[in-house]
Amino acid sequence: MDKNSLIKILSNVSAGKISVENAAIKLTHLNIEDIEYAHIDHNRSIRKGFPEVIFGEGKSAKQITGIMEKMALQEDNIIITRINKTKAQAIVSIFPDAVHHADARMIIWKKQKKPVIKGRGKIVVISAGTSDIPVAMEAYLTAQTMGNKVESVFDVGVAGIHRLFDHSKMIHDASVLIVVAGMEGALPSVVAGMVSRPVIAVPTSVGYGVSMGGLTALFAMLNSCSSNIAVVNIDNGFGAGYMASIINMV
Amino acid sequence: MDKNSLIKILSNVSAGKISVENAAIKLTHLNIEDIEYAHIDHNRSIRKGFPEVIFGEGKSAKQITGIMEKMALQEDNIIITRINKTKAQAIVSIFPDAVHHADARMIIWKKQKKPVIKGRGKIVVISAGTSDIPVAMEAYLTAQTMGNKVESVFDVGVAGIHRLFDHSKMIHDASVLIVVAGMEGALPSVVAGMVSRPVIAVPTSVGYGVSMGGLTALFAMLNSCSSNIAVVNIDNGFGAGYMASIINMV
Amino acid sequence: MDKNSLIKILSNVSAGKISVENAAIKLTHLNIEDIEYAHIDHNRSIRKGFPEVIFGEGKSAKQITGIMEKMALQEDNIIITRINKTKAQAIVSIFPDAVHHADARMIIWKKQKKPVIKGRGKIVVISAGTSDIPVAMEAYLTAQTMGNKVESVFDVGVAGIHRLFDHSKMIHDASVLIVVAGMEGALPSVVAGMVSRPVIAVPTSVGYGVSMGGLTALFAMLNSCSSNIAVVNIDNGFGAGYMASIINMV
Amino acid sequence: MDKNSLIKILSNVSAGKISVENAAIKLTHLNIEDIEYAHIDHNRSIRKGFPEVIFGEGKSAKQITGIMEKMALQEDNIIITRINKTKAQAIVSIFPDAVHHADARMIIWKKQKKPVIKGRGKIVVISAGTSDIPVAMEAYLTAQTMGNKVESVFDVGVAGIHRLFDHSKMIHDASVLIVVAGMEGALPSVVAGMVSRPVIAVPTSVGYGVSMGGLTALFAMLNSCSSNIAVVNIDNGFGAGYMASIINMV
Amino acid sequence: MDKNSLIKILSNVSAGKISVENAAIKLTHLNIEDIEYAHIDHNRSIRKGFPEVIFGEGKSAKQITGIMEKMALQEDNIIITRINKTKAQAIVSIFPDAVHHADARMIIWKKQKKPVIKGRGKIVVISAGTSDIPVAMEAYLTAQTMGNKVESVFDVGVAGIHRLFDHSKMIHDASVLIVVAGMEGALPSVVAGMVSRPVIAVPTSVGYGVSMGGLTALFAMLNSCSSNIAVVNIDNGFGAGYMASIINMV
Amino acid sequence: MDKNSLIKILSNVSAGKISVENAAIKLTHLNIEDIEYAHIDHNRSIRKGFPEVIFGEGKSAKQITGIMEKMALQEDNIIITRINKTKAQAIVSIFPDAVHHADARMIIWKKQKKPVIKGRGKIVVISAGTSDIPVAMEAYLTAQTMGNKVESVFDVGVAGIHRLFDHSKMIHDASVLIVVAGMEGALPSVVAGMVSRPVIAVPTSVGYGVSMGGLTALFAMLNSCSSNIAVVNIDNGFGAGYMASIINMV
Amino acid sequence: MDKNSLIKILSNVSAGKISVENAAIKLTHLNIEDIEYAHIDHNRSIRKGFPEVIFGEGKSAKQITGIMEKMALQEDNIIITRINKTKAQAIVSIFPDAVHHADARMIIWKKQKKPVIKGRGKIVVISAGTSDIPVAMEAYLTAQTMGNKVESVFDVGVAGIHRLFDHSKMIHDASVLIVVAGMEGALPSVVAGMVSRPVIAVPTSVGYGVSMGGLTALFAMLNSCSSNIAVVNIDNGFGAGYMASIINMV
Amino acid sequence: MDKNSLIKILSNVSAGKISVENAAIKLTHLNIEDIEYAHIDHNRSIRKGFPEVIFGEGKSAKQITGIMEKMALQEDNIIITRINKTKAQAIVSIFPDAVHHADARMIIWKKQKKPVIKGRGKIVVISAGTSDIPVAMEAYLTAQTMGNKVESVFDVGVAGIHRLFDHSKMIHDASVLIVVAGMEGALPSVVAGMVSRPVIAVPTSVGYGVSMGGLTALFAMLNSCSSNIAVVNIDNGFGAGYMASIINMV
Repeated sequence: MDKNSLIKILSNVSAGKISVENAAIKLTHLNIEDIEYAHIDHNRSIRKGFPEVIFGEGKSAKQITGIMEKMALQEDNIIITRINKTKAQAIVSIFPDAVHHADARMIIWKKQKKPVIKGRGKIVVISAGTSDIPVAMEAYLTAQTMGNKVESVFDVGVAGIHRLFDHSKMIHDASVLIVVAGMEGALPSVVAGMVSRPVIAVPTSVGYGVSMGGLTALFAMLNSCSSNIAVVNIDNGFGAGYMASIINMV
Repeated sequence: MDKNSLIKILSNVSAGKISVENAAIKLTHLNIEDIEYAHIDHNRSIRKGFPEVIFGEGKSAKQITGIMEKMALQEDNIIITRINKTKAQAIVSIFPDAVHHADARMIIWKKQKKPVIKGRGKIVVISAGTSDIPVAMEAYLTAQTMGNKVESVFDVGVAGIHRLFDHSKMIHDASVLIVVAGMEGALPSVVAGMVSRPVIAVPTSVGYGVSMGGLTALFAMLNSCSSNIAVVNIDNGFGAGYMASIINMV
Repeated sequence: MDKNSLIKILSNVSAGKISVENAAIKLTHLNIEDIEYAHIDHNRSIRKGFPEVIFGEGKSAKQITGIMEKMALQEDNIIITRINKTKAQAIVSIFPDAVHHADARMIIWKKQKKPVIKGRGKIVVISAGTSDIPVAMEAYLTAQTMGNKVESVFDVGVAGIHRLFDHSKMIHDASVLIVVAGMEGALPSVVAGMVSRPVIAVPTSVGYGVSMGGLTALFAMLNSCSSNIAVVNIDNGFGAGYMASIINMV
Repeated sequence: MDKNSLIKILSNVSAGKISVENAAIKLTHLNIEDIEYAHIDHNRSIRKGFPEVIFGEGKSAKQITGIMEKMALQEDNIIITRINKTKAQAIVSIFPDAVHHADARMIIWKKQKKPVIKGRGKIVVISAGTSDIPVAMEAYLTAQTMGNKVESVFDVGVAGIHRLFDHSKMIHDASVLIVVAGMEGALPSVVAGMVSRPVIAVPTSVGYGVSMGGLTALFAMLNSCSSNIAVVNIDNGFGAGYMASIINMV
Repeated sequence: MDKNSLIKILSNVSAGKISVENAAIKLTHLNIEDIEYAHIDHNRSIRKGFPEVIFGEGKSAKQITGIMEKMALQEDNIIITRINKTKAQAIVSIFPDAVHHADARMIIWKKQKKPVIKGRGKIVVISAGTSDIPVAMEAYLTAQTMGNKVESVFDVGVAGIHRLFDHSKMIHDASVLIVVAGMEGALPSVVAGMVSRPVIAVPTSVGYGVSMGGLTALFAMLNSCSSNIAVVNIDNGFGAGYMASIINMV
Repeated sequence: MDKNSLIKILSNVSAGKISVENAAIKLTHLNIEDIEYAHIDHNRSIRKGFPEVIFGEGKSAKQITGIMEKMALQEDNIIITRINKTKAQAIVSIFPDAVHHADARMIIWKKQKKPVIKGRGKIVVISAGTSDIPVAMEAYLTAQTMGNKVESVFDVGVAGIHRLFDHSKMIHDASVLIVVAGMEGALPSVVAGMVSRPVIAVPTSVGYGVSMGGLTALFAMLNSCSSNIAVVNIDNGFGAGYMASIINMV
Repeated sequence: MDKNSLIKILSNVSAGKISVENAAIKLTHLNIEDIEYAHIDHNRSIRKGFPEVIFGEGKSAKQITGIMEKMALQEDNIIITRINKTKAQAIVSIFPDAVHHADARMIIWKKQKKPVIKGRGKIVVISAGTSDIPVAMEAYLTAQTMGNKVESVFDVGVAGIHRLFDHSKMIHDASVLIVVAGMEGALPSVVAGMVSRPVIAVPTSVGYGVSMGGLTALFAMLNSCSSNIAVVNIDNGFGAGYMASIINMV
Repeated sequence: MDKNSLIKILSNVSAGKISVENAAIKLTHLNIEDIEYAHIDHNRSIRKGFPEVIFGEGKSAKQITGIMEKMALQEDNIIITRINKTKAQAIVSIFPDAVHHADARMIIWKKQKKPVIKGRGKIVVISAGTSDIPVAMEAYLTAQTMGNKVESVFDVGVAGIHRLFDHSKMIHDASVLIVVAGMEGALPSVVAGMVSRPVIAVPTSVGYGVSMGGLTALFAMLNSCSSNIAVVNIDNGFGAGYMASIINMV
């Protein structure tokens, strides 16, 4: 939204020419900046409570920093997902305050270093195997950046179910849980059976043969005999962290 | 859990032989009644906050009333899903207080007629087409029975998107949203783009040709470009109502 | 194998014209009776240790009793699987000694009422849900008829994992385990993680939506992070009982 | 078609030996040039109104320029699709008049720089996300080269539906619309619901997890609850541009 | 749209309180009648050029006549698709002017018996086999009812390609073509290769084995090496007729 | 088969110790040479009429020449399929008589340069597009090497069906036809409709989007409405050439 | 072809107005009778060597006898496939010479009772299980009706491979083999490994669970490590009999 | 399990404060070492009879040696699967006693060079083709390392079934059989039909076209008409070796 438009709307409000409500609608709808290869949705953080994430895959480092420059003027946080090492270095050299989390393939940039905790309770991220950690970390960092207390426990798959039970206190104290698993995708069912809180299940593409690139885990989670589960796309740690965060703020 | 076991545990607590915490664990884990064709999990309502639902498909009316008799002693509500007309009549003839909701293929039995509202905000159920109503009603009644204020708007699919916008106030006031759609499954994406609250998306098996029995809608919802969406199994209105309910009580 | 052939072979053996080993090979290979719509493999019980099972689906009651008449002359047990009520009544009216197990959709006919126990240890059959019982009972009765001690526990799915742990002694005492589950198919992984013995996993077609007629459970079981699991076809309780039985006799 | 054949036919027409209509049929059917690795269909531009496109994938730069040399003698335009940078440079070095559009992975060669507008109305190309731009550009350039007025708006996906509505005038003025989307493929349904004109929907392979390489978007588009939609293959921007163009010339 | 709303808007226009353009927008967006089980979109015929079709499958005869009563007040034509005999008789007994086309599983009701021809040219419907006729007739009647000249030729599949060529004049004279085929779905490719006009391809579920319920024909059509093809959902004769009709009116 | 064994069998025949027929059986079954990484089946050329082909993919050049050395002692021809350039050069440097056909990804080695024609009639190989040529050439060379007259016509797909008809004499003269096509796989149906002779259809993986790696073409061919078609695996030019050859020798 | 057309063509030939060759082409292409619901292709038996088969599924008994009446005037044989009992009785009551083969779901009508043997050698039909017999019989009767010597052996699946070897003489004497199998579809590979002649493999939809309606058998056959195999559609016994017949007449 | 915990438990046992049984449970459940990227389950070898395997894919050489260092203190054997050459060299340079088996993509480390034979009988590993050897060797080495006598025969696929019969003595002497096959996956059915012992079938991803990455072989094996078969995941040689080993120790 350019300055002139903003002033025009506000003058009209001040002059009683348009009501406060109509002005609000206009400000919610118009604030989109067109920079040739993207429509940046600046008022998304008003409308949705959090700015747009930048999906790093398939964008050049230059395109990403271009978008970041526009966003940094108005937003408190910027999250970039699915970013590889080479691009990450190029971005961090331009935005030295941005932190590259290689394990989660993310870059996070924050105006204020100390996040304000906005969530009611604690979000717990659980993963089944070592190979699921990148997706689990993506969920972890997303939820943390959005203003939640987050804890995690990794590599506690169902083949050794007692490893999970060793962490039962942390699990029972959670407000929302994110459970990440590939292969047979059984962990969310077991965890959800233990608690009364909502579980966001994240299938991963980890596995081989009939893991079907994560479809088996996805379908297993959707078929769970527990009812306190909802599922996001394969490998979508960001989505799980986002969803858990807004649930934690209901 | 039979009476003797209960007394034994409580006497031990009273005599200081076992701690309160250990007694709690025992009561949480032992209270399962084996009635030949089912393990009824009586303390589930303590552990999970709501009793087990009875999945009506594939059980005889006699089996269902058998389970209901045991449950009615201890629970405040009983939900039976996927129940056809014939079985429903047989059950209602034995439990005259139970109400058969033919449009949702459910039976609901409540000890108290007036439900206690426990949820923080309002749950809104939105469906895309007329044929999606049975699944939407299953979600509606589940959320209502579990103690939530629920509102609904049906037949507002994306082919006439302005029908949706006519209800935008109701949509923006929701604490949690359930969006039910078959065919191309696009409605949850559009709704989620309008609000900052969590959306539980329910794909239905409505459609023909490449609707693939609901897989197309399911995959479309999992691929949504909105982040405030999580998905349940095809036609799983109960699961969506359950999940929305516990989110509304975070 | 008709009588003349048998006498001819045995006379030759007696006369030293063919060696014992060659006679054995002939008897193993020739003994097939052609009754127009089937090749009955009479010496299969010698070669394989158990006679052919009659797959009831797609055969008329008349065809089945025709095959039974031939088999009853030579075999100690006859197992018929996937038999519906109508056909079962017709068959039992002709073979009054045959027992119809409606829950397992089987007919079992035994020459001797008291089975000889031939297996080393005990086989335990575990099922996840009430709807999995028919498949579990097919496995149970097959293993029992083949001469094994068999125990079972039903309706102990992973959504209430403590129900399983209540039976941990029976599980740890098993020589071989059969675990039957539909929907997300997670139970075999959890059971296999608890024991060191072989687990035969049986996916069932129980479920809806993305249960994909049992494919999801099948793929989940094949992807198990436990290594002491092998899997049979969807709903193949007979095959699991057969496989567990011959493992128990290694 | 070699010169001799052409002269022979025309002489016959002139001499009244064959009718004009028969000659037309012959000229329509014979004009195919065999250059070892391809049958070039020179009269296709008569029969179909536009020459054959050269699908660049899997052909060497040398093969492509070989075909171009033959085509350039007779055609006004040559379109090459799915061409990578290396091959494009080689081709442009030989045909300096040919323009490489890297964003659309195309080369376009035109005899006359200024295209004659032949279409009745305006074609509008809309794309859902930044990553869909290459396919959208392929459609755009194809329609333009074939003699249509074309406009475009990119990155207006359904997660922020108001971005689309900001362009509603352009959308309503279109004679034919091309809508390009990956992931959940919902945009064509929404656009088609807004207008009365034909919409050609193009699914793209953009997405991950259950985007299934574009199948999810494709199936969603085919299942659209709007009736003014028809669909082309995944990533087939050229086909959409071609189809929209001939619709615009009905 | 209820009368009061209409009057209010028009009075405001008359009084200059809202501009003509704004009134038009309001009338386009508000005119939706809620009759409990459906949102009837009355101004769709203004916005889209044709009223909503009633998809007969899954609606009772009573629901359908309920919707028809509302629509008949305002619309010139009503199309009901996928209607079986029993329901059709019930509907025709209430709307005696409605015509049941059993071969196309449709009911068509028209205010004026003689349709006004609005399309520019002629639409030709071609089908591959006898079993494809119901889908082809659905396309034929839809295009005819919407105001087009329509011709058809059935049972001219590619296994006897000369049957097609016998009709080449009709094919070349068409303005738009609808080609219906099941099994291998090859007919649209062949037809499209013969003409320069747009071809709407309709796959049908006719076939067995790997016809995959029409998926094979659908995928074959999407993969066509002809470019003047776009495709609709399996068995969607209505959609093809609708699309061809609006193309014919570009 | 080592020499000693051979001599022993033949001496026994000569001495009347074993009958000619028994000796034939022995020679047919024993002649397998074990060279660690392969069981070379030397008498396959007796039993099957042609030696084993060497599938080049996944074998090293060294392994291949190792097998060739053994085979060259006894066979008249050696065919190696799916061989890349690098390996081909290594092999030809050791077997200078072997010819590398780069377009077909094959190496062919023949003892006699001039092949003996053994087939009754002529085999014709037809391919739909330029990209299908490698598979078509594999079929061509296999049939030729096995002793058949072979002709070919390439790039005559159904989008320009008249290109096919220009070759109708060659097509009608064929004894057996091999038709190779990717994308929509329609060409075999059209060709089979023109002739009374057997057509071996070969789907290729050529295409994109819903060509599904050749599955669409495969399924289209299996669903052909012509009856004189049988199909081989995707890209299996060798199998088609082999099958056509033995049909031509019935 | 109506009489007038025929006379006109022949008079022209007689008068030297058109050559014999041109007349032949005309007679080959024009002879199609349009009886509203079908284009009967009378000269197919000239062009293809055998008249069109009537696919019984989805046609009424009345439609079938209508087509038969036309065909019986010109053809020597009529084959109707996939015909159920009720329709068969209706047809046989009108065509008393037609024979209903219930096991093959076929009706065969022959002008001459004694078939002329036209094939070179013998066709052998082999099936794996009892449930595959209907498909095997369809192949058997087709090949026999088309003028071939045919033999068969049923129920010789690979689980008891010696049953197959008992018939090895019949198998080795065959000119062409048809091998029918459901479930794992392994029999064609084993048979093809035993012989040098062409094997037409027919997958059936027999099986459950992951038999996938015959897809597993189909794919197994296409993946066969034997090269003398080509495959037809699932359950397509007619196609296999037709293909084997024309191979036997090469 | 750290030393302090162990001492504490044992002191309590000694003092009679906890029973032997309770101590056993504790020792079974607590012994998990957390090294940041993995939970090493040290008492797994007590609970399961064999230590955890290290799945090499997706772990760095450094991570693997880190885990090995911890395991080597307590275990007798370490198995690493799916390890490539580069990583293998790095690992062997640190653990010189570890042996890299390149053909099986494994590293095996043993404390004692001479394995104690613990299995009852002999395990036989059979593979269909040369390309299946890596998976077969993985099974072979796993079973051998776990303390079994193992024999093998490779490249004996069903296209030359007599190659298999040449090894029938070895096959009949086996206690448990592992059968490895790609492509059509028919070998396990044939082998299982020959013996009465359990067969563990391993599908491989070897093949092309409709081998579907091993799904075809997998489904064929699950559909086997033999009952003494159970199946593991595609390419899971380790799992087959493990399962065969524990069966051999029942």
